[in-house]
Amino acid sequence: MNDVIKLDNFLFGGDYNPDQWLKSPEILKKDIEMFVEARVNVVSLGIFAWSAYEPVEGEFHFEWLKEIIDNLYNNGIYTVLATPSGARPKWLADKYPEVLRVNKDRRRIGFGMRHNHCHTSSVYREKVYIINRKLAETLGDHPGVILWHISNEYGGECYCDSCQKAFQNWLKDRYQTIDRLNDEWVTAFWSHTYNSFEQIEAPGTMELGEWAMNPLLLNWRRFVTFITKDFMKNEIKALRDAGNQKPATTNFMYDYDGLNYKKFSDIVDIVSWDNYSRWHKFEDIEVAYDTAFQHDLMRGIKHKPFMLMESCPTAVNWQSISKLRWPRLAETAGLQAVAHGSDTVMYFQMRQARAGMEKLHGALISSYGEKDDRIYEECVSLGKRLEGLGRCNSGQVPVQTAFVYDRENIWALEDSFGPRNKDMGIKSLTNKMYKGLRRANLNVEIVDMEDELTGYKLVVAPLAYLHRAGFADKVRKFVTAGGVFVTSYWFGIVDEDDKMHLGAVPHELTDVMGLRETEVDGLFDGMKYKILKAQGATDKLKEEYSFDMLCNLVEPTTAKTLMTYGSDFYAGTPAVLVNEFGEGKAYYLGAHAEDAFYEDLFDYIVEEAGLDRIIEEKLPYGVELSSRYLGDQEKVFLQNFTRNEIAIDTKVYNGTLKAYETVVCDKC
Amino acid sequence: MNDVIKLDNFLFGGDYNPDQWLKSPEILKKDIEMFVEARVNVVSLGIFAWSAYEPVEGEFHFEWLKEIIDNLYNNGIYTVLATPSGARPKWLADKYPEVLRVNKDRRRIGFGMRHNHCHTSSVYREKVYIINRKLAETLGDHPGVILWHISNEYGGECYCDSCQKAFQNWLKDRYQTIDRLNDEWVTAFWSHTYNSFEQIEAPGTMELGEWAMNPLLLNWRRFVTFITKDFMKNEIKALRDAGNQKPATTNFMYDYDGLNYKKFSDIVDIVSWDNYSRWHKFEDIEVAYDTAFQHDLMRGIKHKPFMLMESCPTAVNWQSISKLRWPRLAETAGLQAVAHGSDTVMYFQMRQARAGMEKLHGALISSYGEKDDRIYEECVSLGKRLEGLGRCNSGQVPVQTAFVYDRENIWALEDSFGPRNKDMGIKSLTNKMYKGLRRANLNVEIVDMEDELTGYKLVVAPLAYLHRAGFADKVRKFVTAGGVFVTSYWFGIVDEDDKMHLGAVPHELTDVMGLRETEVDGLFDGMKYKILKAQGATDKLKEEYSFDMLCNLVEPTTAKTLMTYGSDFYAGTPAVLVNEFGEGKAYYLGAHAEDAFYEDLFDYIVEEAGLDRIIEEKLPYGVELSSRYLGDQEKVFLQNFTRNEIAIDTKVYNGTLKAYETVVCDKC
Amino acid sequence: MNDVIKLDNFLFGGDYNPDQWLKSPEILKKDIEMFVEARVNVVSLGIFAWSAYEPVEGEFHFEWLKEIIDNLYNNGIYTVLATPSGARPKWLADKYPEVLRVNKDRRRIGFGMRHNHCHTSSVYREKVYIINRKLAETLGDHPGVILWHISNEYGGECYCDSCQKAFQNWLKDRYQTIDRLNDEWVTAFWSHTYNSFEQIEAPGTMELGEWAMNPLLLNWRRFVTFITKDFMKNEIKALRDAGNQKPATTNFMYDYDGLNYKKFSDIVDIVSWDNYSRWHKFEDIEVAYDTAFQHDLMRGIKHKPFMLMESCPTAVNWQSISKLRWPRLAETAGLQAVAHGSDTVMYFQMRQARAGMEKLHGALISSYGEKDDRIYEECVSLGKRLEGLGRCNSGQVPVQTAFVYDRENIWALEDSFGPRNKDMGIKSLTNKMYKGLRRANLNVEIVDMEDELTGYKLVVAPLAYLHRAGFADKVRKFVTAGGVFVTSYWFGIVDEDDKMHLGAVPHELTDVMGLRETEVDGLFDGMKYKILKAQGATDKLKEEYSFDMLCNLVEPTTAKTLMTYGSDFYAGTPAVLVNEFGEGKAYYLGAHAEDAFYEDLFDYIVEEAGLDRIIEEKLPYGVELSSRYLGDQEKVFLQNFTRNEIAIDTKVYNGTLKAYETVVCDKC
Repeated sequence: MNDVIKLDNFLFGGDYNPDQWLKSPEILKKDIEMFVEARVNVVSLGIFAWSAYEPVEGEFHFEWLKEIIDNLYNNGIYTVLATPSGARPKWLADKYPEVLRVNKDRRRIGFGMRHNHCHTSSVYREKVYIINRKLAETLGDHPGVILWHISNEYGGECYCDSCQKAFQNWLKDRYQTIDRLNDEWVTAFWSHTYNSFEQIEAPGTMELGEWAMNPLLLNWRRFVTFITKDFMKNEIKALRDAGNQKPATTNFMYDYDGLNYKKFSDIVDIVSWDNYSRWHKFEDIEVAYDTAFQHDLMRGIKHKPFMLMESCPTAVNWQSISKLRWPRLAETAGLQAVAHGSDTVMYFQMRQARAGMEKLHGALISSYGEKDDRIYEECVSLGKRLEGLGRCNSGQVPVQTAFVYDRENIWALEDSFGPRNKDMGIKSLTNKMYKGLRRANLNVEIVDMEDELTGYKLVVAPLAYLHRAGFADKVRKFVTAGGVFVTSYWFGIVDEDDKMHLGAVPHELTDVMGLRETEVDGLFDGMKYKILKAQGATDKLKEEYSFDMLCNLVEPTTAKTLMTYGSDFYAGTPAVLVNEFGEGKAYYLGAHAEDAFYEDLFDYIVEEAGLDRIIEEKLPYGVELSSRYLGDQEKVFLQNFTRNEIAIDTKVYNGTLKAYETVVCDKC
Repeated sequence: MNDVIKLDNFLFGGDYNPDQWLKSPEILKKDIEMFVEARVNVVSLGIFAWSAYEPVEGEFHFEWLKEIIDNLYNNGIYTVLATPSGARPKWLADKYPEVLRVNKDRRRIGFGMRHNHCHTSSVYREKVYIINRKLAETLGDHPGVILWHISNEYGGECYCDSCQKAFQNWLKDRYQTIDRLNDEWVTAFWSHTYNSFEQIEAPGTMELGEWAMNPLLLNWRRFVTFITKDFMKNEIKALRDAGNQKPATTNFMYDYDGLNYKKFSDIVDIVSWDNYSRWHKFEDIEVAYDTAFQHDLMRGIKHKPFMLMESCPTAVNWQSISKLRWPRLAETAGLQAVAHGSDTVMYFQMRQARAGMEKLHGALISSYGEKDDRIYEECVSLGKRLEGLGRCNSGQVPVQTAFVYDRENIWALEDSFGPRNKDMGIKSLTNKMYKGLRRANLNVEIVDMEDELTGYKLVVAPLAYLHRAGFADKVRKFVTAGGVFVTSYWFGIVDEDDKMHLGAVPHELTDVMGLRETEVDGLFDGMKYKILKAQGATDKLKEEYSFDMLCNLVEPTTAKTLMTYGSDFYAGTPAVLVNEFGEGKAYYLGAHAEDAFYEDLFDYIVEEAGLDRIIEEKLPYGVELSSRYLGDQEKVFLQNFTRNEIAIDTKVYNGTLKAYETVVCDKC
Repeated sequence: MNDVIKLDNFLFGGDYNPDQWLKSPEILKKDIEMFVEARVNVVSLGIFAWSAYEPVEGEFHFEWLKEIIDNLYNNGIYTVLATPSGARPKWLADKYPEVLRVNKDRRRIGFGMRHNHCHTSSVYREKVYIINRKLAETLGDHPGVILWHISNEYGGECYCDSCQKAFQNWLKDRYQTIDRLNDEWVTAFWSHTYNSFEQIEAPGTMELGEWAMNPLLLNWRRFVTFITKDFMKNEIKALRDAGNQKPATTNFMYDYDGLNYKKFSDIVDIVSWDNYSRWHKFEDIEVAYDTAFQHDLMRGIKHKPFMLMESCPTAVNWQSISKLRWPRLAETAGLQAVAHGSDTVMYFQMRQARAGMEKLHGALISSYGEKDDRIYEECVSLGKRLEGLGRCNSGQVPVQTAFVYDRENIWALEDSFGPRNKDMGIKSLTNKMYKGLRRANLNVEIVDMEDELTGYKLVVAPLAYLHRAGFADKVRKFVTAGGVFVTSYWFGIVDEDDKMHLGAVPHELTDVMGLRETEVDGLFDGMKYKILKAQGATDKLKEEYSFDMLCNLVEPTTAKTLMTYGSDFYAGTPAVLVNEFGEGKAYYLGAHAEDAFYEDLFDYIVEEAGLDRIIEEKLPYGVELSSRYLGDQEKVFLQNFTRNEIAIDTKVYNGTLKAYETVVCDKC
């Protein structure tokens, strides 16, 4: 396992809630027996156990937990131990109502559900500190405990006075003077000039007022990341103050937009995340690429292997429709995580809850509770297979390609008011371009604009509307030094406060791109336009591709046109261009095109730029290809994400892949 | 008329609001004249007349009402007299704001509309008691008054502190100790353990907090029924304290989900309800079956004839689109109620309101106000026909078949979080199975899980997810004794607190059903799968049927497979099974199938089990068939719910049915 | 230019926000240079500049504004000077929170956005008075200032106690006694009788209570118009008290439903409005007719030429999708306003904002800021063309046809609860009938029921459900005197308090129409019915037309049937009728028919009634035809609203119209 946790093998297990079953010792016993048979070697404990730890204020009970951890450890099962701040006891909320969040509409919520505490409440921070410290003092040194699971799926935001005060202070740190903030935010717009930081309020709902002031929205989002991280620091401090130095993580979520996870890279010892792919809802190979992107996104936070902390071996219960998973899909989904850099396969949940909102959520052990259960049998099979993979040594994924996915840019795009409020296609374009790269047999590293670009051969940066400070300069240096850079429409428009760049755009990069962006056009839903191959462009591109959603008109200076628009008043003007600059090349993709375009284009670029492919042969659509080091050997993963048998004829593997089958083989 | 009211004939009339016309004596006079011509013999008075009764606090005015009742009585028209609690005067709400409801978001509403009082406000209960008692003392003994109409369409809920206190007390009665409640509700989930009943709060909105804790949701719904009934008891007590013993009802609503009407069976002397079928919005015969189910549901509350208290002779005004009714439909809709056990046909409203939200709602007398009006003419025709039916003697509907429709089970299904949050298909499956029974020429009694099953030959219980205490035992005894039991997927999963049953399900009934339910699959919208006839299964079933929405996988022990799945990874596994147990049979229908399946299956079951049909001949689709005793004679009702003439060739009737025509004939 | 402003030429320009650029003198300089090149001769200043005028309470700064106005004036550019009440400084909202609006849910909003002040707050009125007066005193006499732009896009409503008190007083003025109000509103319905005006509350949200009491809703809407106008009076008073007598306007919005703009006709010196047509979203010629209607609606407020105060030369940014405009469309859209009576073409905005919600909104000068910009070039071209049109002299549009579009009637229809709550088709029927008139080559004057009908030859009044006092009488006189009157289903149903007329309808007009309306039928979405030509009806009508949405059944007395219904139970009954009455004719159009019906019918009526057409020749679909006097010459505007070249062969013009081209020629 990972270099952080210092265990050799893959970890297999997941969230376990014995606190719900303390009166049923026969269940607890049967659980262990079934875990052992499935090769489970880790569970996460205590995530929502605060009321079991401290049923009355100041009265602590950890004996039951010790017994559970002992029992697990004696059966070869490690514990990931959670701090319980994700849900507080009723007595705590009743006595200190200020621990509960104030919603965006400025009303304090009642007790209920979970994940809804104020981030700045001094009482809550104190109570969390105490319970965390007691937990660390009592059980932190247990040899079975290998990792801290700080809280659970941090998210959301609080608008109480205390949080607003913290926001004002954060702004003061950032801008120093109110005049500078007024200038950067252009508050003269609609007479919003502030006289002091104390006048600044967090955004409100549409009903209550300030919901559309871009720099305020953007900076509030930045602040939420800051204050959540600050809350987490307080949690970790309690553990360290107790003398415990075991590593810590917190479980991230799928493409979560509420936090900039990249900012957590220096506070988590290892990245972990919870994956609930919507298998079968869409074509599974599409879901697979989407999931792959998320695994890569998580690996990219620290540029290191990570943990799959939660997932589900079959249907979850909270989606609008719960579709059962096909045989072998659980196994292949688990191995996909491994292929992309996970050192674990873990589930929510080890045993189905008996009541409440998650009682119908899939689990390793269902309410039925016996071994002759399809899902349990699939878990056993995966457990054995992971055991068979041997030492993982936190093997790296070899990459030459970086994909720029920047949360602050996404935030700015989401709130930009134009040119397509309905849907800017961020997700769609990201998926298309990522899939294009993967279909060209490349591993991909996800970076953001704070990351360095040196060391990569190909950098792809779609919809890079907002440039973080220094990004334009990184792009310039990367291309100058011989890199291949690919971007899209709506590139380099605003600065870090979402302020328009004046003059020609892409700002500071018109020479690198060899063009000026003029107008951006939003297409109505259902409109399909064409781009047409320009004379003399590469044969790797087809004569035409369709596009929709958005496109950018440009005026080239030095860039060469590869494709032109085929529709509307701008028919005949350049749509896809490439510019030679310094030692490198810069591609501009002016429209949101059909998938085939990106597949063809990247295939051409990879060949032309001489990038290494995982394997040389093109695989049939439906098979995902990845590679990763396990020990010193680069392993190739071939995964069939269809319901059909697929024949594979490659140097690394020659044979068939059954429906949802994974083959792992050595790279030759 | 009914054995409760002691009148021989059918009652014809409806809601009348002379309080809106007191300054127009010519209108009041014309009304009576038109009522008499239409054979109207009953009106409901005073439903929203509180401000006319008590325009200023403590000042009562009933003279005008006495004059109205006298006048009606002298013209042969009885009065159903309402208590006015459904809407209070402005002075009352202004002086005692606590009489107004607190919404789920914990904000007290303002004055306005109606049906929005707090159920526990002591002031409101006192004010209602006073006005009801005054009304009873002043006019309760009038010979024209035959029935009390308590309030109007009780519904909704209040979340004020007083109601929450009442909820806590109700829970204390139910669970005795907080430990027991914690155990039954499994409050350890998400750290929600309570230290005392005083800590328990009613559910909140999604914004405010506790919106998804199943046992809390379910018990809150039970409490709302309890407290509404308690409020009604206070209303009736005022009448009885005034020395009045006339029978009482309250008007129920179509499939109303906010109350468990079955719990009112011991407090209403006769069941009454308000029917607003959406004629023409869907195929009319489908609307007719849906309406028929509702009539049967109402009859099933006390297992006795009931009153149609409100309906509309033409378009209502509150639906999104108000479609006019075809000629004769008003008559046939009225007679359908009679066929299913109603002793009345009554309308909202006798005369169109002149202003406000209901001024465009259909009425016996429109704003036009003359006799040469299509709707008035149709009402006259129906009035005469009801008069011609003679004595009704509260004739019973003869039944051998029970249909289990349990409100608490429905509540649990609606909030269950999985396997299909979008739509569990409760309504759809109910309609399909009910229609299948009716197409087999059966009358049907609707029961809930508190009812006894003995005495029936066939019991149908679709989607019986939650089993009320004792229900499994009733099913076992029923089948053992020779009954035919039919159930569906998702059967016997949770207990009365929505807690999962551990081990094999259906809980306590795996032997009766001869199978174990394994996994339940939610199908995405638009997916259509097949079930295929198993070898050797009856010829009455077709080779295949389609299904959608949901299906259950099973492992049979002793059950015999009638049909198998034809799709997905579970193709070939059993879908429809029958098990012989004791003297009886138990059918398990694993999927939400197309209508034809239920029609074919019930036709087969009725024949095999030798049930009595109303008539033997199968009728064309479009004709509803019912029977009911009028006096000592069982009458057969043949009703054409299409726009075409239909030829009928049966022993009871040989001839044609015109569009929307009803024929009533003696059973041979 | 207009007779109010006393300038000869068309004005070209728009909203300009130099207050956002005070630190960038090079930008301000470049702006002037580009304005001059584009023949810009007017800008609107200061609309949201309060925090620049009064950055701290009581400290006023107008120097910068004077410099700007001087500079503009020295370059031949006039100023429309705005009062800044549309958005207040943060310090003002913080110190006097009561200036902020209370929402319908009775919660006071926070600071933010704009257009959200209380209309009755005495502090706000005082602060607005002071700033307006200071502004007038300081710069009102500047020769460059030609017009006051009072506030911005007045709209919305406040529900604070002070506004409610004002509402009660307004009701007291209107009804004198509470008894009269109770009678007119029929408050006996649902026991809502008031004891005093003090008991009356404004409507609330559906959650909070009183949301459906028609006369309350209708009168609240009337009050909102009254109080907004009252607020505006206070604004203007400040200017007049400063001794300034320059004319004033306020900018109206597209079909804005929140105010009855007709009531502002005596307070604005000239009507102005902001037009944001959704070009390209629908077929452009349809958008053109819709826009034309709005221009005519604005001209109809004072029956005089008006100002196009805002519009956009290319895509806006706040629509869900921002589609670029085709070449020449900006020019043709500007000239369309002129054709319909505008003396200006003005834009929001002259230069793109640098940040905030409107930074991506189209402008004459974009963030790019150079002259080689497609949109700037189009503006230059239009500026030159307007210059070339010469003196406009507030030339009138010659009309013989009036179209009745009454805001109070629309309000009543929107809230009427039946017969089609989903959509009464007000907009749809209005567009169909207006387009029918325009396709018959007629100019159209929009009037409301307060306007006189004398002087017109044809009056069209669709969906005239509520008749304002005296309207029926005007119709009677108009027809008696020889006019042709055309109305539709749902005619003359309620009085000014939305109270049903008793007896036969259309109220007081059954003899004029020669029929009685019996029942109104709402058709479900997707239903298409037919009307069929009656025997002997004019050849100008086709044999059949389709209809949907709504239709009215009638019983004719003297009216002659032109078409009958072809569907449903009312097949064969009259659908379209004409009645000769006095010297005139009255047409009743019973159904919401397809466009062709109105085009054919009006073509027939125009011919039969001998109305003057702008030109005699029928133009191809896609060309809009209008006429207007410029100086003494009636000019004919031919505008191609398609992407195709269209050949025109008429007496006034023989040649082609390119895509989006406008030709202006003399009427022969």
